[in-house]
Amino acid sequence: MSTSISPLAPKHVPDMPDVAGVRLATAQAGIRYANRTDVLLALFDAGTVAAGVFTRSKCPSAPVEWCRAHLKNKARALVVNSGNANAFTGKSGRAATKLTAEIAAKAAGCKPGEVFLASTGVIGEPLDAHKFAPVMAGLAGSARAGGFHDAAKAIMTTDTFPKVATATARIGKTAVTINGIAKGAGMIAPDMATMLSFVFTDAAIAAPALQAMLKNGVADTFNAVTIDGDTSTSDTLMMFATGRAEGCPRIVRASDPRLKDFRKALQKVLANLSEQVARDGEGARKLVEIVVEGAVSKASARRIAMSIANSPLVKTAIAGEDANWGRVVMAVGKAGEPADRDRLSIWFGGIRVAHKGARDPGYDEAAVSAEMKKPEIFLKVALGLGKGRDRVLTCDLTKEYVAINGDYRS
Amino acid sequence: MSTSISPLAPKHVPDMPDVAGVRLATAQAGIRYANRTDVLLALFDAGTVAAGVFTRSKCPSAPVEWCRAHLKNKARALVVNSGNANAFTGKSGRAATKLTAEIAAKAAGCKPGEVFLASTGVIGEPLDAHKFAPVMAGLAGSARAGGFHDAAKAIMTTDTFPKVATATARIGKTAVTINGIAKGAGMIAPDMATMLSFVFTDAAIAAPALQAMLKNGVADTFNAVTIDGDTSTSDTLMMFATGRAEGCPRIVRASDPRLKDFRKALQKVLANLSEQVARDGEGARKLVEIVVEGAVSKASARRIAMSIANSPLVKTAIAGEDANWGRVVMAVGKAGEPADRDRLSIWFGGIRVAHKGARDPGYDEAAVSAEMKKPEIFLKVALGLGKGRDRVLTCDLTKEYVAINGDYRS
Repeated sequence: MSTSISPLAPKHVPDMPDVAGVRLATAQAGIRYANRTDVLLALFDAGTVAAGVFTRSKCPSAPVEWCRAHLKNKARALVVNSGNANAFTGKSGRAATKLTAEIAAKAAGCKPGEVFLASTGVIGEPLDAHKFAPVMAGLAGSARAGGFHDAAKAIMTTDTFPKVATATARIGKTAVTINGIAKGAGMIAPDMATMLSFVFTDAAIAAPALQAMLKNGVADTFNAVTIDGDTSTSDTLMMFATGRAEGCPRIVRASDPRLKDFRKALQKVLANLSEQVARDGEGARKLVEIVVEGAVSKASARRIAMSIANSPLVKTAIAGEDANWGRVVMAVGKAGEPADRDRLSIWFGGIRVAHKGARDPGYDEAAVSAEMKKPEIFLKVALGLGKGRDRVLTCDLTKEYVAINGDYRS
Repeated sequence: MSTSISPLAPKHVPDMPDVAGVRLATAQAGIRYANRTDVLLALFDAGTVAAGVFTRSKCPSAPVEWCRAHLKNKARALVVNSGNANAFTGKSGRAATKLTAEIAAKAAGCKPGEVFLASTGVIGEPLDAHKFAPVMAGLAGSARAGGFHDAAKAIMTTDTFPKVATATARIGKTAVTINGIAKGAGMIAPDMATMLSFVFTDAAIAAPALQAMLKNGVADTFNAVTIDGDTSTSDTLMMFATGRAEGCPRIVRASDPRLKDFRKALQKVLANLSEQVARDGEGARKLVEIVVEGAVSKASARRIAMSIANSPLVKTAIAGEDANWGRVVMAVGKAGEPADRDRLSIWFGGIRVAHKGARDPGYDEAAVSAEMKKPEIFLKVALGLGKGRDRVLTCDLTKEYVAINGDYRS
């Protein structure tokens, strides 16, 4: 299995500032991997609130169920391990989750219900939570401000690069920080189906407002990214607000106009992290941006864009650098949304290849071929029916994807 | 591009009897392919009725629209070409369809509206219907009883073997014949997205009854097969009944008890042809049968089975001979249907690998591995919720699939 860094990895990795009220530590607990960190402990100052959005899977992992059940509690700690997803592990999975929270609560000096948990890695293998006991006190003792790059590394599974993003925003006269980390490769990781992301801020925002902003922010970022249409049992995006930015006014409602800049900065962090997930899709050689416009609604545009983004025929064509707009028509047609073949136009990389139900009269194969050789492919579909518009990100489907996912355990 | 015959091809190819009232001929019209037949003409005796089910695509091909519009007419001819799907070709596509019907009607001595049409091949390229003119009179002149094997060959695109099936049935005291031909490789063919199938019988059955039986028959056969979840713009299954079986009573209603044996035989032909389509999925090395039972309804079981069958992670795991039931759980979870992780059991090849939300205590890796090496994989999921049961067929997702679909035009 290739472990070389994706050619689509961001060229610039940002410096990550501290977030007041957040301390981090990583360790090697030996869950599955040798010679690398596989557990992250984040400690939060008293008063920290949490928000979270989770997988829509009907078979979620034990940690997802734990986080959902405790989301209204204050947050004092977050424990994330890689190597084992603790998913589909039955009663022993729930027991492992509880034990992990108890071990962390003891080390952090809080209640188990104030500890949030996420696990990523193999599904169906029992997680031996006792492995956390020997390292947890050391983690709590060594936790310090900063360390976001190390944190992003500790939660990786088949990711080829750690994913971090940061932004600052003003709330009133106070500058606050938003730091995020994520791991992919989304819903496509081999045994290791998990997309995890954690966002930390020192802003003082009440939990319901934080939850509302996070839920809203995810719609056009993480929920607008697909690798292969497969939905992880463990997808978790959590956000923690410590309120420790000095002088930050406490915001209670998401509709508070003072959140305008913060909301924008949060959106930027979420968009950045989710794009990195698409860039690190397994076997990906092309980042594909799909815009659908002229649909009857935004929701309709989303479904059509997702139908294109998840079509194996479209994805393999892009891997083959083939501007195969016939397959795009096919994917529009199968979406089940209103579409009129005779009004449909399609662009690859800004060049219109099909117009009003037929090949564009000015179609220039050479120009389109040049576009298709680029590492980033922009694909636009105009339906000509209404004002609905949406955008999703995906990657191509390569032989490496099949190799990674087919050869993994053999 | 490999053109070797699929290792999953049926070992036995049946002899195909004549169907009274049906005459066939094939020719080389040079639509796209050189040195092979690419056009099929079927002529039907007066009084022949037609039934058809077509793609659910919102962007269907011009021939699909033509057939739908004329389905209530009597059928005197069927023209099928390979090499060009005449899909997404706008007004010129509709004109090409009309011209083809006119050329065939002249040769057959009937009205254009009594000619049915299907095209398979590249999408978006204009179809030059004038190419049919020089060969059509010869086709009509040479049409003869029999020739079903040649007919199945003429409609192939990326299929690695021609697909035929036959059955006999009794209606009253009369023996009638049902012959079918099909081309795949279903919704996965490269530029050439088309699944076509044609069934011919000498039974005397009124069009509405024929239509009802065909629609009913397709639900658990062609509609229960998926290669990659991509839906062709051209999917066509048509059936023609000549009524020429000597002494055959004319049946008007689908509910007529005399159709019992015929219905069973038709089901057998449709199941056989659709299974051959799955066996010839592009790049396929494994035929995969998926049974879901214990769902809240048959429809729910179908959606869960399709979610498993279309999951790239499940399909690549099977290609890698990996009994990766964690991915099956993932696919159950993402289907959006009622499912309870703690009641879920999963079998590969008759061996239970997961039970009640966790790995089966008696899990034997060696025994399961031996099952996974077989060319036919049986995968069963029991949900433990109700009596809903369904079955679908698919194939694995291999590097060859990506190669065929990614490298095709490059």
